[in-house]
Amino acid sequence: MKRKSFREAECPVARTLDAIGDWWSLLIVRDAFDGIRRFSAFQQNLGIARGMLSTRLRDLVEAEVLALAPASDGSAYQEYVLTKKGRDLFLVIVAMRQWGEDHLYRADERHSVLVETATGAPVGRLRLQAEDGRRLGWAETCVSGAKCDTSAADKPKGRRASPAGSNPPRQL
Amino acid sequence: MKRKSFREAECPVARTLDAIGDWWSLLIVRDAFDGIRRFSAFQQNLGIARGMLSTRLRDLVEAEVLALAPASDGSAYQEYVLTKKGRDLFLVIVAMRQWGEDHLYRADERHSVLVETATGAPVGRLRLQAEDGRRLGWAETCVSGAKCDTSAADKPKGRRASPAGSNPPRQL
Repeated sequence: MKRKSFREAECPVARTLDAIGDWWSLLIVRDAFDGIRRFSAFQQNLGIARGMLSTRLRDLVEAEVLALAPASDGSAYQEYVLTKKGRDLFLVIVAMRQWGEDHLYRADERHSVLVETATGAPVGRLRLQAEDGRRLGWAETCVSGAKCDTSAADKPKGRRASPAGSNPPRQL
Repeated sequence: MKRKSFREAECPVARTLDAIGDWWSLLIVRDAFDGIRRFSAFQQNLGIARGMLSTRLRDLVEAEVLALAPASDGSAYQEYVLTKKGRDLFLVIVAMRQWGEDHLYRADERHSVLVETATGAPVGRLRLQAEDGRRLGWAETCVSGAKCDTSAADKPKGRRASPAGSNPPRQL
């Protein structure tokens, strides 16, 4: 089924979902971040049909998220490696990981953990902040343009700004 | 088509995609963050077929991302509002937005901007960091467990495994 395209959308979220929103595609990208590079390895790890995997890999290469490269061991295999554009998807993957950790596991369930390689410590939480480092909550933000002005009144929980300077400065 | 389920996956990214990975579902969540609450408003904004929207809304309520609420104006309409679990998806949406802004627009193209309501200034970039606030790049991280050890050798940019047993227990 050809879905509606948001390729020309003014909303970057819609364009991103148009480019990499496919459920399988983000799992392929996740596997690429974990070092998987070959068709057979993606297929084995994801349990995806060959045809579906071929299509997704082709689309990710077309979107310049993955690039084809000669096999790292000098064999005749082709490998798929993340481009800079693809590597920049890491925070999307991390945001999904942290939400899943927070909401989709029972206390007694194990899950994989993203750690800093050098220390083995879990990475820190992603946080929304102002450009000057103040912490921000979603209710303190607004999408520029019409939505900011016209939907403010009926926003759930009254998306209002917090008192100036009420958020502690954040260090990065 | 019933897709493969990752509902029981050990990887939080896979579970998250299983729960909210549908392309339409994240656009519905995005619209909910922008204050859209009614079926007709979601349909109008997304241009999605009624049946598809009904299914997605039902699934998002079942996943406890959205909850049904009486109409805010006292009318007979039902409204869909984000739960705490749903609001916690904000960083996933922001991460997608920032990637899209970086990679999917020509220099002369307009796009919407997420701003701090109080100041009108664009929100800051999401950044990966250690728990102590040091900046981290994806190549400095590793997914705990087998992936850390077995795929380290062929990881681009030398993603090395953390020392065995160096991962602190994770609290959920």
